[in-house]
Amino acid sequence: MNPFQLNLRTLFERSEQYFGKSEIVSRQAQGSIHRYSYRDFHHRVRRLGSALKHLDVRAGERVATFCWNHYRHLELYFAVPCFGAVLHTVNIRLSDDDLIYIFNHAEDTVIFVDDELVPVIERILPSLTAVRHIVIMGEEAVPNLSKRSLSYEELIQHGDESFAFGELDENLPSGMCYTSATTGKPKGVIYTQRAIYLHAMTLCLADVMAISEHDTVMPVVPMYHVNSWGLPFASIFAGANLVLPGPRPQARDLLRLIASEHVSFAAAAVTVGIDMLRELESEPEDISSLRQLMLGGQATPKAVMEKYLSQYGIPIFTAWGATETSPIATAVHIKKHERSLDDHAKIDIRVRQGVVVPGLELKVVNEQGEGVSWDDRQMGEIWVRGPWVATEYYRDSRSAEGFADGWWKSGDMATINEEGVLRLVDRAKDLIKSGGEWISSVQLENELMAHPAIVEACVVAVPHEKWIERPVAFVVSRDIASFRDEELEHWLTRKFPKWWVPDQFIRVDQIPRTGAGKFNKRELRERLRTLTQSDPG
Amino acid sequence: MNPFQLNLRTLFERSEQYFGKSEIVSRQAQGSIHRYSYRDFHHRVRRLGSALKHLDVRAGERVATFCWNHYRHLELYFAVPCFGAVLHTVNIRLSDDDLIYIFNHAEDTVIFVDDELVPVIERILPSLTAVRHIVIMGEEAVPNLSKRSLSYEELIQHGDESFAFGELDENLPSGMCYTSATTGKPKGVIYTQRAIYLHAMTLCLADVMAISEHDTVMPVVPMYHVNSWGLPFASIFAGANLVLPGPRPQARDLLRLIASEHVSFAAAAVTVGIDMLRELESEPEDISSLRQLMLGGQATPKAVMEKYLSQYGIPIFTAWGATETSPIATAVHIKKHERSLDDHAKIDIRVRQGVVVPGLELKVVNEQGEGVSWDDRQMGEIWVRGPWVATEYYRDSRSAEGFADGWWKSGDMATINEEGVLRLVDRAKDLIKSGGEWISSVQLENELMAHPAIVEACVVAVPHEKWIERPVAFVVSRDIASFRDEELEHWLTRKFPKWWVPDQFIRVDQIPRTGAGKFNKRELRERLRTLTQSDPG
Repeated sequence: MNPFQLNLRTLFERSEQYFGKSEIVSRQAQGSIHRYSYRDFHHRVRRLGSALKHLDVRAGERVATFCWNHYRHLELYFAVPCFGAVLHTVNIRLSDDDLIYIFNHAEDTVIFVDDELVPVIERILPSLTAVRHIVIMGEEAVPNLSKRSLSYEELIQHGDESFAFGELDENLPSGMCYTSATTGKPKGVIYTQRAIYLHAMTLCLADVMAISEHDTVMPVVPMYHVNSWGLPFASIFAGANLVLPGPRPQARDLLRLIASEHVSFAAAAVTVGIDMLRELESEPEDISSLRQLMLGGQATPKAVMEKYLSQYGIPIFTAWGATETSPIATAVHIKKHERSLDDHAKIDIRVRQGVVVPGLELKVVNEQGEGVSWDDRQMGEIWVRGPWVATEYYRDSRSAEGFADGWWKSGDMATINEEGVLRLVDRAKDLIKSGGEWISSVQLENELMAHPAIVEACVVAVPHEKWIERPVAFVVSRDIASFRDEELEHWLTRKFPKWWVPDQFIRVDQIPRTGAGKFNKRELRERLRTLTQSDPG
Repeated sequence: MNPFQLNLRTLFERSEQYFGKSEIVSRQAQGSIHRYSYRDFHHRVRRLGSALKHLDVRAGERVATFCWNHYRHLELYFAVPCFGAVLHTVNIRLSDDDLIYIFNHAEDTVIFVDDELVPVIERILPSLTAVRHIVIMGEEAVPNLSKRSLSYEELIQHGDESFAFGELDENLPSGMCYTSATTGKPKGVIYTQRAIYLHAMTLCLADVMAISEHDTVMPVVPMYHVNSWGLPFASIFAGANLVLPGPRPQARDLLRLIASEHVSFAAAAVTVGIDMLRELESEPEDISSLRQLMLGGQATPKAVMEKYLSQYGIPIFTAWGATETSPIATAVHIKKHERSLDDHAKIDIRVRQGVVVPGLELKVVNEQGEGVSWDDRQMGEIWVRGPWVATEYYRDSRSAEGFADGWWKSGDMATINEEGVLRLVDRAKDLIKSGGEWISSVQLENELMAHPAIVEACVVAVPHEKWIERPVAFVVSRDIASFRDEELEHWLTRKFPKWWVPDQFIRVDQIPRTGAGKFNKRELRERLRTLTQSDPG
């Protein structure tokens, strides 16, 4: 049998041999730019590998990061798995309770933490059971923190530039991420070496993202969020330049980075894409280097796509996936017989979630457990399986509910058209069941956001005595005075039946967001519950 | 452990689901065109799968093809490995002796043979020990051949369109090819399901061949020659249109297919590329749909590249590989900092063999067994290893010489420049050792073919009393009277030392070719030996 393995060492070493001149650019805390070559990056990764040995990290052990997107985080992305340990990227936006649960459940032995995030770790440190070392991502340790604090740069400085990574079986765990659960604590997902490798390779396929050595890739999606959608791995695989936007990047920072670094492929949450549009309207920036802008985390409103395309010539790239799928499971692809369609018709394809990427299998399953017809009418839950799809949660009894016969049951509801193209209808839990019929919150939101006066819209269900549930919309408008509810009702009934129209349009300054940058529907439901309870009726 | 396998069933079934409208076009014997959709193709592959069961083919058994490039051959490319048997593509140009050896050594139980090639099989059939069935690739069986003859179309007709292929472990053998050996009988190489899958995926990477659903791919390289360089698998993986040039295609046939089918990516032997240029000069054809023309089998002369680029705007794509490497091991890639170079400088990159493709490892090893420096001066033998590189020959004691520590020792001599780009110097056996120094036959040939009067040139060694070996050139010229030997000598000494100049320039009408379309140096050496022996001095 051929013994050669698909692992991150192979990926790393080819990149080291052939792409020494490619660049990695990081925006730093004060807005300054850190810039170095792949050659420097590779040397530092090897130094870091030897430091892990020095820290007595064992193969298979979980090593946590608690960081923004920057070059040091990227070094960990490679040093930890190439060393044979498991890179556990922890979401910096979680509550202390969730953080304590996650660090302890994963049994992380080392935490690499950004300077500015040290207070969070300091606060929870007494509750962490497995941690041996805290490494501060900068020049200096934090003496007051604890005896376990070390400086990242000191570790690197004492590391061995010629440290050799060992052989790695492709089925070894190499990465880990926790996903929020609808009930209970977050659930952990393990990524094998093979999963990460094949996923990176998939993003470089001509008909998926076509990530190339010619690209300058800017992953805005946090590196603590499902491997930053796999882009750091794919970029190093291809030898692309990387631009990492650093701590707390604002829309203006991102636009400036695109302009100054000639970013060709950027990836961000839909909400960030909306923020950037707003900023561009107030003051332009040259973003013409972008060949595609990938927006994700939730469905991109058609109006947003149209603006990017008509005003800036930039096509929006859509995909679908989750923590459980590494994450890319589907991707938009305009087929050859669709190439002659006009922009408007192409956007109708781009707002959908595309087709399953090569290597995975996908079906949309109705309540009877059967695959639905490809008629774009029958709705069902998306199930997916394949080499980079999880088959269980890490040491978690909830695996039994989440998986069946190797299929991951996504909880996302969709239809499929005759070309096999997925259309996300809603999260199962966000669907609104009114009078025995389904209302899609996502479709209502998209239509509301297509209205010229509306910037953001988020629709959730409220309990209703007669109809069981009814929709309520939260809207952010350009100018609160600029429209009346009747106008929005009229706008929606052009597309939807009258009973779909939300019972209320609540004006807000902004829609609250989750750690992953998605609209936080849970918080809005909570707000509504409070409103109802305090309602003096 | 994640149980999902990289195999041809997965590849086939995704293609079946998503690319039903893509087309497969075959040129037929009388020049007519057969055209059908992927949908028809997939149905027929399933019918063929059920027919294999009917023929009592067992998992792992070798099933041989003896065919040109056409849709029926393509159906076998998928039905046989998806069924779990081993697709053994036999080179139709081999001698009877070699054919008998190969069919018996592989223990092929079924042979699928083109009508017009039946006489060859008929001749050797009495010597074939394992064959149970001969299937004629047409409407009718050949009653006189033997009781074992069946008609392909009859098999398909009685097959089951909904036949379900089973689960396939990725490490199962799925394909097989024999390569000619410098001494003794051909050597067999087995390709696993995983090797074929990963190789197909590699060809679709943006920085390798970028094969896409938008492409129309024409593999001119025979389907009996190392999986037609993997293009049939990559094309079905991507959902590309395929154009198969059928039996005995001439340069004019190929040009017409490119023009009429809007071929965007074609792949052929260098000699075919030269023939097409000659035909284009005599009568033009619109080949502007080609985004790249891949030429291989031997190094493409710079003059050929320059003509394609300057006169037709078509870049030549170069790669390197062999039967043992599935075959693509390296591919040309113009790096980002080289994009601003002029055409001439880019051709200097394109005439080299590129960098190792992702997933494989490559080194150039000197006689002391050490990797050479990347200085483009030190020469060594190319060694390569990885998931789609053979680690042994099939039941063959010569494996011991051909492999070391999982590395395949290619026998090709090369240098590497500071960018890691390979430059093929020569086959080890084609290098000429004159007075203790090496002369590269390939470099002499390329320079000769850059001369305006020379169409083809092939340089081989003759034994020499004093210098051990000396070069002799065979040349095909546009017009035999148009140049003198002195002119060629002068032409070569512009680039090479005087002692590199061949002792003789022998005019011939054509250079003999091997079954794979390469210059047949063995035959030329034989011719020289005969000449020397009959020399009355």
